[in-house]
Amino acid sequence: MKATIVTIGDEILIGQIVDTNSAFIAKSLDRIGVEIHEMISINDNKQHILNTFLEFQNKVDLVVITGGLGPTKDDITKKTFCDYFDDELVINEEVLRNVTQIIEGFYKRKITQINKDQALVPSKCTVLHNKVGTAPGMWMKKENTVFVSLPGVPFEMKYLVENEIIPKIVIEYKRPYIIHKTVLTYGIGESLLAETIENWENNLPDFIKLAYLPSPGRVRLRLSARGTDKDFLENAIFENVTSLAKILGDSIVGFDDDETLEIVVGRLLTQQNKTISTAESCTGGKIAQILTSVSGASNYFKGSVVSYSTETKISVLGLSEDLIKKHSVVSAEVAREMAINIQKIMKTDYAIATTGNAGPSKGDSNAEIGTVFIALAMPNEVLIEEFNFGQPRDKVIDRTVVKSLEMLRKEILKNVQ
Amino acid sequence: MKATIVTIGDEILIGQIVDTNSAFIAKSLDRIGVEIHEMISINDNKQHILNTFLEFQNKVDLVVITGGLGPTKDDITKKTFCDYFDDELVINEEVLRNVTQIIEGFYKRKITQINKDQALVPSKCTVLHNKVGTAPGMWMKKENTVFVSLPGVPFEMKYLVENEIIPKIVIEYKRPYIIHKTVLTYGIGESLLAETIENWENNLPDFIKLAYLPSPGRVRLRLSARGTDKDFLENAIFENVTSLAKILGDSIVGFDDDETLEIVVGRLLTQQNKTISTAESCTGGKIAQILTSVSGASNYFKGSVVSYSTETKISVLGLSEDLIKKHSVVSAEVAREMAINIQKIMKTDYAIATTGNAGPSKGDSNAEIGTVFIALAMPNEVLIEEFNFGQPRDKVIDRTVVKSLEMLRKEILKNVQ
Repeated sequence: MKATIVTIGDEILIGQIVDTNSAFIAKSLDRIGVEIHEMISINDNKQHILNTFLEFQNKVDLVVITGGLGPTKDDITKKTFCDYFDDELVINEEVLRNVTQIIEGFYKRKITQINKDQALVPSKCTVLHNKVGTAPGMWMKKENTVFVSLPGVPFEMKYLVENEIIPKIVIEYKRPYIIHKTVLTYGIGESLLAETIENWENNLPDFIKLAYLPSPGRVRLRLSARGTDKDFLENAIFENVTSLAKILGDSIVGFDDDETLEIVVGRLLTQQNKTISTAESCTGGKIAQILTSVSGASNYFKGSVVSYSTETKISVLGLSEDLIKKHSVVSAEVAREMAINIQKIMKTDYAIATTGNAGPSKGDSNAEIGTVFIALAMPNEVLIEEFNFGQPRDKVIDRTVVKSLEMLRKEILKNVQ
Repeated sequence: MKATIVTIGDEILIGQIVDTNSAFIAKSLDRIGVEIHEMISINDNKQHILNTFLEFQNKVDLVVITGGLGPTKDDITKKTFCDYFDDELVINEEVLRNVTQIIEGFYKRKITQINKDQALVPSKCTVLHNKVGTAPGMWMKKENTVFVSLPGVPFEMKYLVENEIIPKIVIEYKRPYIIHKTVLTYGIGESLLAETIENWENNLPDFIKLAYLPSPGRVRLRLSARGTDKDFLENAIFENVTSLAKILGDSIVGFDDDETLEIVVGRLLTQQNKTISTAESCTGGKIAQILTSVSGASNYFKGSVVSYSTETKISVLGLSEDLIKKHSVVSAEVAREMAINIQKIMKTDYAIATTGNAGPSKGDSNAEIGTVFIALAMPNEVLIEEFNFGQPRDKVIDRTVVKSLEMLRKEILKNVQ
């Protein structure tokens, strides 16, 4: 079973917003064995939309379209559906009740004509009822291809994919098995990693594909096996990942598709019943924000002091003015004191401190742009490392966050063994 | 001049990563008047790539391809270029010097065959020299269409777009004028906004297109004018935006394409010579992180205390245990104390405090999931508001961040007048 994902919206084609909907839909379809043939973004132009429908008619089994369903004048997907399927718009009573409930019940406003028009759908379509918004989804078949239209608002789109589309496909279509396994590695660059595992990669069977997904400080390796025998595929993936793990050792951080360093660190802290706090200068609270993006973080994360000014380092973190004067705010000594002091203030087992110059201009210190000190206070010692993460600003911040969590993970693992 | 953007990579088609490169390329091309015909993502399959090249050959002037240029085995764009242009790969000496310099000079590692192979390029191509990475870009023309290949690593792609492709297009191609103006509005929903400006919208001239771009708490309106007479277009945009501003009043936050609430707030604080700090519970440091994502934030942002546990609220923020027991951690009273105390601790003019329950499970309080209190301490008073932002967790956090910055902006503006 093959699918094409179509995103409609001028705002995407001029680069004003990044299309995140397509990735969500692709991931959801991929999980149930639907192969994505193409993703395509086109503008709010009726003829272009019609040409795209025609192009994929009978070429794929499913075309999922997002966008163009809102209440405003630039939204034209519904009218284009009517043209393509030679149909007309009619009021759907159930959708109208839902729209009325949301506008009058939830928002406490009087319903208007623009709101009511959201209940108009092509007469021959199967309505996909949207319980979290006012724009319904639509499912229509022409010859061998099903066309599905979804609103572009991400959480409404997600609701309809999870609650309407995926269950419908699972019941109505036969699909092959696709099994993916992601191996998350930290600390080895892409080229070096490729050389390290060259023999292993050459010995992979034909039905397993390997992809390298590099991002700052880490590379994800993705193995994908496709076939009809689920057990056979699972065994093959298991064997090959096991032999890979032998080669890469503790450079492997995790295996879960959605696994991130913050989830891994959170699990380790929970298992060890340890707590953490942060004192952040150049990262401006991003380590705290990433740690707390994991639900359940309150079990191990006690808090953070973002000391963005020298004054705050002194008054809140209790650093000595002499120390800062002697070594400058961007120094190993200041990082160490920040880590030790926040560990005491928050009464935690571990503490991370960052101080550096993220640029673009030099701040309170003479340190070169990109210079960062990370200190990790542990129960019995403090580890301090110096880095130069180059430019630009957002890269320096992101690499500092990743590196500090990576240091934390390695040290917790040492203390476990 | 029309362009198609092609992203190559299995990881995109299975939804494992979100394609942000296309939006960057689109924005850069749009600024110099190149119209984006389509964006398309396809997998690492040679025949599919060749079919895509053929599809856009002579249909658009420019095809920009990203991805598939790395050093690993799943990268096949270069070989496909050779097939399509009937060419062969040869070593480019300048690229080889650059690769050697990066590997041996910067990374201090011995150069390997895999590294050297990065200097292989089709013999007939114009090389786009990549000074920030090892994979070069390529520029090749067939009949009326130029095909450009770029590495998929975002900062390398960005370097080549800004320093090689855009300057080359500006010199070699004639383009029409496209003028965009974005009007950033806060606090009015999309439907209500559409009704409010209906007459204005109906009176827009044909050469101006309007798009609504909603996101949590705000709607961007984008006007796009296209034509040959730059002055005429600029005047028309100016007149229509001026009449829109009369209708919408202070719901308009800004006009810049890249304007965000954090930039607006930062500018206001700088202009007024005021400072700010935050005490964050449910937002976990995200307000601090967003404020400090703006360069120059150290001029007005002094710091934050992320008090993720009740203990930290007492020991670091100095809240009274009785107050918390009496009202619970998620309460107006606790938000007020957090704001007043952090304002004192950090010695700032303004202070934002958040406390709430972001879910998915109930934490230290009995407050319903989605309940959030935001307190804004100002020089002479404290403003406290209660919200229910529903679910899920990341939406509650994001809406709290946006709402708190929106409250701050409104209050600063009041104090100015």
